[in-house]
Amino acid sequence: MFNCTDVHEPTGCDCCGAGRWLSPAGMQAMASMPPPTNIEAMSGAAGARLSPSGGGLVIDCHGHYTTEPPELFDWRKRQIAAIGDASQMPSVDSFNVSDDALRQSVEGAQLKLQRERGTSVTLFSPRASGMSHHVGDASVSAAWTRISNDLIYRMTQLYPDNFVGVCQLPQSPGVEPKNCIPELVRCVEELGFVGCNLNPDPSGGYWTDPPLTDRWWYPFYEKLVELDVPAMVHVSAAANRAFHTTGSHYINGDTTAFVQFLMSDLFKDFPTLKFIIPHGGGAIPYHWGRYRGIAQDQKRPPLSESMLKNVFFDTCVYHQPGIDLLTKVIPAENILFASEMVGAVKGIDPQTGFNYDDTRRYIDASTILTSDQKRAIFAGNARRIFSRIPARLFG
Amino acid sequence: MFNCTDVHEPTGCDCCGAGRWLSPAGMQAMASMPPPTNIEAMSGAAGARLSPSGGGLVIDCHGHYTTEPPELFDWRKRQIAAIGDASQMPSVDSFNVSDDALRQSVEGAQLKLQRERGTSVTLFSPRASGMSHHVGDASVSAAWTRISNDLIYRMTQLYPDNFVGVCQLPQSPGVEPKNCIPELVRCVEELGFVGCNLNPDPSGGYWTDPPLTDRWWYPFYEKLVELDVPAMVHVSAAANRAFHTTGSHYINGDTTAFVQFLMSDLFKDFPTLKFIIPHGGGAIPYHWGRYRGIAQDQKRPPLSESMLKNVFFDTCVYHQPGIDLLTKVIPAENILFASEMVGAVKGIDPQTGFNYDDTRRYIDASTILTSDQKRAIFAGNARRIFSRIPARLFG
Repeated sequence: MFNCTDVHEPTGCDCCGAGRWLSPAGMQAMASMPPPTNIEAMSGAAGARLSPSGGGLVIDCHGHYTTEPPELFDWRKRQIAAIGDASQMPSVDSFNVSDDALRQSVEGAQLKLQRERGTSVTLFSPRASGMSHHVGDASVSAAWTRISNDLIYRMTQLYPDNFVGVCQLPQSPGVEPKNCIPELVRCVEELGFVGCNLNPDPSGGYWTDPPLTDRWWYPFYEKLVELDVPAMVHVSAAANRAFHTTGSHYINGDTTAFVQFLMSDLFKDFPTLKFIIPHGGGAIPYHWGRYRGIAQDQKRPPLSESMLKNVFFDTCVYHQPGIDLLTKVIPAENILFASEMVGAVKGIDPQTGFNYDDTRRYIDASTILTSDQKRAIFAGNARRIFSRIPARLFG
Repeated sequence: MFNCTDVHEPTGCDCCGAGRWLSPAGMQAMASMPPPTNIEAMSGAAGARLSPSGGGLVIDCHGHYTTEPPELFDWRKRQIAAIGDASQMPSVDSFNVSDDALRQSVEGAQLKLQRERGTSVTLFSPRASGMSHHVGDASVSAAWTRISNDLIYRMTQLYPDNFVGVCQLPQSPGVEPKNCIPELVRCVEELGFVGCNLNPDPSGGYWTDPPLTDRWWYPFYEKLVELDVPAMVHVSAAANRAFHTTGSHYINGDTTAFVQFLMSDLFKDFPTLKFIIPHGGGAIPYHWGRYRGIAQDQKRPPLSESMLKNVFFDTCVYHQPGIDLLTKVIPAENILFASEMVGAVKGIDPQTGFNYDDTRRYIDASTILTSDQKRAIFAGNARRIFSRIPARLFG
């Protein structure tokens, strides 16, 4: 199932997420991005809180650490090579990387983009495709998850105004999700993380585990509710060649999860459980009429009643018409600002001259949203939903 | 994998497509639909060619025979019960249903809706979820496919002005698609069918067959090209409980297929091959910026060059904002009118007072499309893409 010949060369590498490592050439391309426009320049220095529109905080609720230092890839490569041979398995403690290397990995990337785009703080989690829960067994997943989360913690300590932690979970196909509770508790209570990424398909595209609405997941949900921590539903790398990781598997995962929720009574059992469906909710808003109609045909309550107290959508939709649709059909209080930078799409849209994933521009340019709604999307909703975001960040 | 306790009761029945059988109660509900509005009444009698906007033909390129007579379910039930016991397997010839029963099955449903909605002719294929290629082996699929296609043929003979045939294929997981060539040829050359539905995942949600861009499919594509017949990419019932058949599996299938095409050179090998991605293209138009960006990052040509000579989208999007997005981002020449009635969503939208799947209203109401573009979407594009639609239907 797993084939990883070179973790520095992305294409075809399941563990790495095809095409998602930021190579030296990619870093160079980023460094040569166009200079900030006047609006961007207004946002000033790193961690700036003032944004051109609304003058408030802008929380990017969906950012992954996609510019990891080579030391991380080396450790992962050794770990994968040792699957099946315990004597060769590297220990968690053997992983080592300097603070300087960590700073270097984000100074020219996420921090630069925060400054240029006028976003204030990123809810920061390990690379989503890197989670690759299908690789090895639960112990492999646990060690890899611990290292990945610890790196995020170090970033939040190095840049406490720029990054807030969101954790990966040590999921593994066929292993009960309650197995993830200790790592969730560690990340939230000891490391100050405010959310987690929950993979609805640890198999990587074969969908062999029970749906998210099965009682299989309930003990984990009980802990989420107890901690008041939301989960972003986020698949990882596709191990099934039918799917392109960021092109179809991510979007399908979003759509699949929402429909699982829609057809269930999960939120009757967990009225305060909160999920964020990333990538603008997959296909859901585009087919909002279809889903309203399916719910109605099935004699289920309207989506506004059954789903929107518990389910939220991010703004990782990389063109203005998509954001306009999202904001037309989904209430503003259910939308959270996000860009997923540096992520699935790194280029500049020739139609606009700006990065596809500079999603703040689409919100700023929206003629559908009021100023109050924009402020809610940029920060107010995140404050409400991620109750553990430190109050100091709100000034 | 397969569980079918009562083919007349849809819920949880893999072969039938959960919730998609039109029960007697459903037929009654349809009969009590609101009377046609003035605009609808203008369209006149069955098969009327004149539509309120543009005064031209309206071809619905995506309709399934979802109101099949009980005799068909009975035969299928016997067939499924006999899997593993050849002595009990019913023959194709043992299937029998009268013309009157066939007429009765559509007079109060598809034909009534054609009249009311002012659509002229439907490209008509067997129920998509009913294909259920995951049930039994290739011989089971072949017999079921033959009966299903023969029924469509009879409908096209009973109502030559209302229905044009599109065939199911006798696919089976792990069986080479070239196995489907004889049935395709029979349907096109002997029965006068103009297209086929191609299932990118005969496993029903486990995605175990090669992607549509693999050479596994090439012999079948060669025949499609030779016959000049387009394929609608359409999955069938979900056998994997992660997916809801019409809610997520259909939409994911659409998204998955498009991204497979996007990442390949298939259309260099088959420059005249034509695919329709149903359900408004799954998630693709909503994330058009994402896909433009992914193509660009991968150094592939712009989608307008690499995809839009070969890939078309239908209008099965069940609300105005969705249709508006579709028509904003996809060129009108790549959009084909469709409703999939009587299909996934049968109810009336309380926000509009009309059926969710009365998609003609959204096109009529569009302020984005010109009259010429609407005419192209309603009929001109279908005429161009489905070259075998009989000329007599165009008057």
